[in-house]
Amino acid sequence: MQSPFFKRKYCRRSDLIIIAMKNELGSSHRVTTLSCALRAPPPARGLHSESPSAAPQRRPFSRVSEEDLTFFRRILQNRVITDPDLLESSNVDWLRSVRGSSEVLLRPQTTEEVSQILKYCSNRLLAVTPQGGNTGLVGGSVPVYDEIILSTSLMNDIISFDNVSGILTCQAGCVLENLSQYLEDRDHMMPLDLGAKGSCHIGGNVATNAGGLRLLRYGSLRGTVLGLEAVLSDGRVLDCLSSLRKDNTGYDLKQLFIGSEGTLGVITAVSVLCPRRPASVNVVLLGCESFQQLLETFQLCRGMLGEILSAFEFLDSECMDLLKTHLELTNPISECPFYIVIETSGSDATHDAEKLHNFLEEAMTSLLVIDGTVATEDSKIKALWSLRERVTEALTHDGFVYKYDVSLPVDMIYQLVLDMREHLGGGAKRVVGYGHVGDGNLHLNITSSAKDPSLLASIEPFVYEWTAKHRGSISAEHGLGLKKRNYIYYSKHREAVSLMSKIKDMLDPKGILNPYKTLPDTSPRSSN
Amino acid sequence: MQSPFFKRKYCRRSDLIIIAMKNELGSSHRVTTLSCALRAPPPARGLHSESPSAAPQRRPFSRVSEEDLTFFRRILQNRVITDPDLLESSNVDWLRSVRGSSEVLLRPQTTEEVSQILKYCSNRLLAVTPQGGNTGLVGGSVPVYDEIILSTSLMNDIISFDNVSGILTCQAGCVLENLSQYLEDRDHMMPLDLGAKGSCHIGGNVATNAGGLRLLRYGSLRGTVLGLEAVLSDGRVLDCLSSLRKDNTGYDLKQLFIGSEGTLGVITAVSVLCPRRPASVNVVLLGCESFQQLLETFQLCRGMLGEILSAFEFLDSECMDLLKTHLELTNPISECPFYIVIETSGSDATHDAEKLHNFLEEAMTSLLVIDGTVATEDSKIKALWSLRERVTEALTHDGFVYKYDVSLPVDMIYQLVLDMREHLGGGAKRVVGYGHVGDGNLHLNITSSAKDPSLLASIEPFVYEWTAKHRGSISAEHGLGLKKRNYIYYSKHREAVSLMSKIKDMLDPKGILNPYKTLPDTSPRSSN
Repeated sequence: MQSPFFKRKYCRRSDLIIIAMKNELGSSHRVTTLSCALRAPPPARGLHSESPSAAPQRRPFSRVSEEDLTFFRRILQNRVITDPDLLESSNVDWLRSVRGSSEVLLRPQTTEEVSQILKYCSNRLLAVTPQGGNTGLVGGSVPVYDEIILSTSLMNDIISFDNVSGILTCQAGCVLENLSQYLEDRDHMMPLDLGAKGSCHIGGNVATNAGGLRLLRYGSLRGTVLGLEAVLSDGRVLDCLSSLRKDNTGYDLKQLFIGSEGTLGVITAVSVLCPRRPASVNVVLLGCESFQQLLETFQLCRGMLGEILSAFEFLDSECMDLLKTHLELTNPISECPFYIVIETSGSDATHDAEKLHNFLEEAMTSLLVIDGTVATEDSKIKALWSLRERVTEALTHDGFVYKYDVSLPVDMIYQLVLDMREHLGGGAKRVVGYGHVGDGNLHLNITSSAKDPSLLASIEPFVYEWTAKHRGSISAEHGLGLKKRNYIYYSKHREAVSLMSKIKDMLDPKGILNPYKTLPDTSPRSSN
Repeated sequence: MQSPFFKRKYCRRSDLIIIAMKNELGSSHRVTTLSCALRAPPPARGLHSESPSAAPQRRPFSRVSEEDLTFFRRILQNRVITDPDLLESSNVDWLRSVRGSSEVLLRPQTTEEVSQILKYCSNRLLAVTPQGGNTGLVGGSVPVYDEIILSTSLMNDIISFDNVSGILTCQAGCVLENLSQYLEDRDHMMPLDLGAKGSCHIGGNVATNAGGLRLLRYGSLRGTVLGLEAVLSDGRVLDCLSSLRKDNTGYDLKQLFIGSEGTLGVITAVSVLCPRRPASVNVVLLGCESFQQLLETFQLCRGMLGEILSAFEFLDSECMDLLKTHLELTNPISECPFYIVIETSGSDATHDAEKLHNFLEEAMTSLLVIDGTVATEDSKIKALWSLRERVTEALTHDGFVYKYDVSLPVDMIYQLVLDMREHLGGGAKRVVGYGHVGDGNLHLNITSSAKDPSLLASIEPFVYEWTAKHRGSISAEHGLGLKKRNYIYYSKHREAVSLMSKIKDMLDPKGILNPYKTLPDTSPRSSN
């Protein structure tokens, strides 16, 4: 085991931190650029007082030797990548906010190969970063230093699909969109849908407990993932690849791996319960006078659309203004403080249309909504969805954006936007809110004409403290990864984090799996 | 710590085992009667060669002293029960198949009280059996020896209900039916429904990951339980009582406690996502010529009833015959080899009726079903449901019943019945199958005029081996408890059970929580 010496250089420019590190050989091994907003959580909780998102020191893992490469090539032949050009896209996340300096990318095809790799790495104390489609938003899917990248991209076989039960079993590296296409041909659909579906792997989706657009209707992966196979850090294969809807024989181990971001094991295969593809889809845009009325509309909607409701999203008038200003998108209804996008998915087009009609009539009559429009054709459906989906894009044209993704009790989600506006006064250009009402998931975005350290200092820790005060989650669906690991105490109690650390120690005692991710740098001691 | 000496006396009479034990003081501390069928699992898996359901030796826990009672009374006042008559119903399970000899029942009202109790018991090495409504079927909810019974019956406060999101938060001791009633008044319903709803506690439901009648529609508790508070064996309170639909901050610890049968912690409160109450309910009885046609009907049904399908149950002609013979229930349609009970729940009665009509027309036209009848009125709905629900009762009148509750890939569930019939030849009176097609959950029941050791020897381990061979679960929804703990290897790999044991050791290092339950007597060593 080497014990490298690091020189750290912090170049702090507002929220931008560059860390350059050199090991004892003098070669630069790491440059990390974190453009996310950084602020210290409460010191009382035992965290550093500065830059909780920054990478901690490299831990004393071994470095990959020629002998190691020879071993990997014996197992994987030409599926051992060491060409820096080919490694580039796997060393950097897709936001280009975090960059590692791995010199080896392994591309196993089978669980047995993954097992051999991890057994070897465990013995050699080589750190490993599992990587799916590398579409994560919190720096969880790229190495921090020179960790070996273990890619699931060649593990893309569909193992089975049971047309009667709708249960799909496949390798972890299957791309979500490919699975959706495969199922569409068989009159089914995946229970999750994401913007990144063209790249993300189902194994990565499960490892991050991805939420996405269909959660309101089909629930989280914790319910729809029926089975899972994972390779533990020492190479042992844990086969929980059940494809049963009911199985109460002992503890449900697969849940440990769902949402653990590759820190407890490498997911190699999954079984997923897939719903039937809906025969009919409708999308509606509605306008409301107040957020209270929007919430009442949601309530009415749950009652009257009931089983066909598949999405209930919202954006505020600032968002609509952004869409018009920067993307020249037209608001097809009259101007309102709040807009709702509702989607229905059902098995009978006539019934769905009737339910929608009745709901809209009631919502209009009771003055919950002011105006609205319905889309049943594909092109109009897409146009309405784009008003919700392109807010992120419009924001990037508005200046520098401070982005937050929190979940809160549904009736509180917009209060954070209002309180933030009041708190910031004239300090920000815009404070906008949009997101998934049905899931209690708010996307809070604050823009300014340029990066603004004093604005950032006003936003944080206010936003985290506000979220914590209302028992919200500081990461609704993106996970913690590298960037948010030290913010965990805003949403989880000390006892809980202590237990998480014990689970990590139990499953990965050498800490070789996706190090520096998910858990905070300073593990808490239990209070007892 | 005492180190008692036990004399064991095994009186084996076919599947009935009576274990009488005396401690060194000469007082009888334990009589267990296990009427469930017993057979050794494969010896290669490291289990005893005899009676895997029988209780193991009492572990060297302390015995409750007067000093202990004084401590408990100081915390709980008159909520410390030591009267043997009052303890009787808590010492025996409701099947009256397992009996403990606890001398103390504690009835805390708050999490803090539970915490104080467990902290004390941990220090004193006193074993504790958490108990909800005591409606379990595998001997998990009663003491095996003199474990202290910790009842949640006075922890029955509803903490909050959010009418917008449908999220209910309550203490663990709330009776399921009371919660259903509470929600009904608020236009919602619990996502689970069980025959035992009048007695079972929501905490017990969560601790056993109860399935029930609504799983097909609303999914398992792993998806619908959003938060959970548990007290660990040493008294630490783990507060994961989130009421958020999305929260990806670290590992999802609550999943450890769901389905762990009180062996990892005492669940004290839960948050549950509750669906809206359906405005319309229909029930249909259909008859099929073959199980293949029944499966095709299920497939058609999933497509055409889609989002309103809430149950798809089946029974075979032998079941219908039992209902007629023993309960004088009339089959309202023509005689068929297989019968289906379908339930729909929706938000619009007219639409639901139309969907049903279209589905039935298609099913009849394509000759998938031979005959059928629809019920929309409450009384007729109940009459049709009773054909499915009263099979268990009818069976008890047919003689001695060997009962199995397995889950399998949906297309295999009836094959087990056929193979068992062939395997047993004329050895059994009846071999019948019924259950939840939608969940892949078969209730296999075999009757004989009297207890029959040779018949039992033919059934087991055949039934477990068959289930294991088809990657089924030997406990679909009842858990393992005391009775099935040593059968776990039929459904879980050695690595998985090894990991479960490690989790138990981590969370309950002294093993005081619900000892002798869920995990096998002999923990496996990891293969690595």
